[in-house]
Amino acid sequence: MAEANLQVQLARQPEGVPKVTDFQVIKAERPTPGAGQFLLRNIYLSLDPYQRGAIAGRHMGHVRLNPGDVIYGRCLGEVIESKHPDYRVGDHVLTESGWQQFFVSDGTKARKIKADAPLSAYLGALGMPGLTAWAGVEKLGSPRIGETFVVSAAAGPVGATAGQLAKAKGARVVGIAGGDEKCRLVVDKFGFDACVNYKAENWTDQLKAACRNGIQVYFDNVAGPMLDAVTAQTTPYARIVLCGFASQHNRTDAWVGHNVGQFVGKRTQLHGLVVYDYEEQYGAFTKVAAQMLRDGKLAIHEDRIEGLEFAPQLFVKLMKGDNVGKAIVVIGPEKL
Amino acid sequence: MAEANLQVQLARQPEGVPKVTDFQVIKAERPTPGAGQFLLRNIYLSLDPYQRGAIAGRHMGHVRLNPGDVIYGRCLGEVIESKHPDYRVGDHVLTESGWQQFFVSDGTKARKIKADAPLSAYLGALGMPGLTAWAGVEKLGSPRIGETFVVSAAAGPVGATAGQLAKAKGARVVGIAGGDEKCRLVVDKFGFDACVNYKAENWTDQLKAACRNGIQVYFDNVAGPMLDAVTAQTTPYARIVLCGFASQHNRTDAWVGHNVGQFVGKRTQLHGLVVYDYEEQYGAFTKVAAQMLRDGKLAIHEDRIEGLEFAPQLFVKLMKGDNVGKAIVVIGPEKL
Repeated sequence: MAEANLQVQLARQPEGVPKVTDFQVIKAERPTPGAGQFLLRNIYLSLDPYQRGAIAGRHMGHVRLNPGDVIYGRCLGEVIESKHPDYRVGDHVLTESGWQQFFVSDGTKARKIKADAPLSAYLGALGMPGLTAWAGVEKLGSPRIGETFVVSAAAGPVGATAGQLAKAKGARVVGIAGGDEKCRLVVDKFGFDACVNYKAENWTDQLKAACRNGIQVYFDNVAGPMLDAVTAQTTPYARIVLCGFASQHNRTDAWVGHNVGQFVGKRTQLHGLVVYDYEEQYGAFTKVAAQMLRDGKLAIHEDRIEGLEFAPQLFVKLMKGDNVGKAIVVIGPEKL
Repeated sequence: MAEANLQVQLARQPEGVPKVTDFQVIKAERPTPGAGQFLLRNIYLSLDPYQRGAIAGRHMGHVRLNPGDVIYGRCLGEVIESKHPDYRVGDHVLTESGWQQFFVSDGTKARKIKADAPLSAYLGALGMPGLTAWAGVEKLGSPRIGETFVVSAAAGPVGATAGQLAKAKGARVVGIAGGDEKCRLVVDKFGFDACVNYKAENWTDQLKAACRNGIQVYFDNVAGPMLDAVTAQTTPYARIVLCGFASQHNRTDAWVGHNVGQFVGKRTQLHGLVVYDYEEQYGAFTKVAAQMLRDGKLAIHEDRIEGLEFAPQLFVKLMKGDNVGKAIVVIGPEKL
């Protein structure tokens, strides 16, 4: 029998918040690379909120999965066999491999990484979440020295990186997160000036107290009623980066709508952010971010689980907002 | 008995679309100017959609009116008596006089105009509606040569002026208006490339046919479902100017909300517009616009009614969208 390739597949389309039983863990056959291809042994799998929409076919560029399909996901792996001129055994490569142990690639959507920082960081602060944060801060939100920058889902990799980048640009940075543990992490480890727990009843009063000069930039990872509540505290001409929909991922009914009256009255400048537009700048971004990380100016925090078979469990935790930090599944050791 | 001053006052707060009986026409006493003041004989009263919200206290800077209060409104008048060093008899002045024949001002919020264009134009294309259009086109929407610029409420003074300014900047200009008569006006008189009647069942198909390269700039005077429908036809990074809420003025229930998902996916750049921010640029703007008007490059169209006592009737028509062109009440002759 050929060697095995552990995969996590869709068992059934989730309704609302996914359950572990919406997934199935299967031993498939390990693929072999043909000419112009290489074989990856995956080390880390990144779990990200967009995967919820991708499974359902609601995320751009991703068709709705059927039962038996491998779940979408980005992995960092090591080349263990290569018939591709540009990839050598031992190279570390990011691919859209899906939730599985082994993956054959011809280089499409693959990115070789320079292992000059902790490897798993390339799925978080130095990966797509980091690039998202960078685009929202450097390209769209553009906080200036002394301005107040607020970011929601502040304990997650996008929010945490965005806040640290805004801080590096001289802004006063306030996070919004769910729970006191996350808020402590945001202040103590990520160095935000303050963090508000939106599960507290008076969280908008706390936000007001933390943002005495109002809010000039809001990096929104949540949408829903929180967007309206934060907008109410912005000053005229505030920039709002529309980036994520944590409040909407698992909805089965209609979206929560926002009336535009407040945006007009506040002269709000809203910018929709799609990270795929910034992929060409990924190299430049990681160079800066890896240096910040090595210099201790960019902190990361991970919520890890060991074993690909437990990926559904961590994904459910992520979808409930119960994870703390970047969700990473350890598929195999960094070195065999 | 002192001379009379015809006034239109609030009789009762309108519910939904205003009725003529929500207003009362009263003969008050004509005011006399004190030291540092001047007396205006109003010639034209401007009727504008914002007045609906102002009456109800929903428009910035305007407190909710009580029965017996004069209705908010901007007038163009002639100075007929002056104890103010900067204003002479015969000067033409714009003020926030409200719906009445005579008004005493100390110069606060007053603006002397140079009568180098039809006087009533200073309440429309050369007035606040024109400045609104200018800010949305020149400062926020910034259409480039060859881009497609769409504006709703295109037959109104803001929309018509915006389209003509965008056209002057080299854009392809498509209007959206309610009814075939308005659409003809928009194309034939204002020179738009096309105009779509949103009351037609297949109006979104018509819009698609008129915007073959998608929409790069949308000047939104309407909000509501039309905003979502137009956004669906925008290209990535389109600029949307959030300016007016024609769809929402007379609502008694909650606002129609917009989900931000489409704005993110389309990388939309939304800008809330409040014309009051551009008042310092009014002088520069009117100079340009008056010249365009004299050169035949800026057309205006008015829906006039003679007699202040008929202002409520025209206002109801405006609120129903049944007016065609800028709503102007003629209070008195230009020259006595």
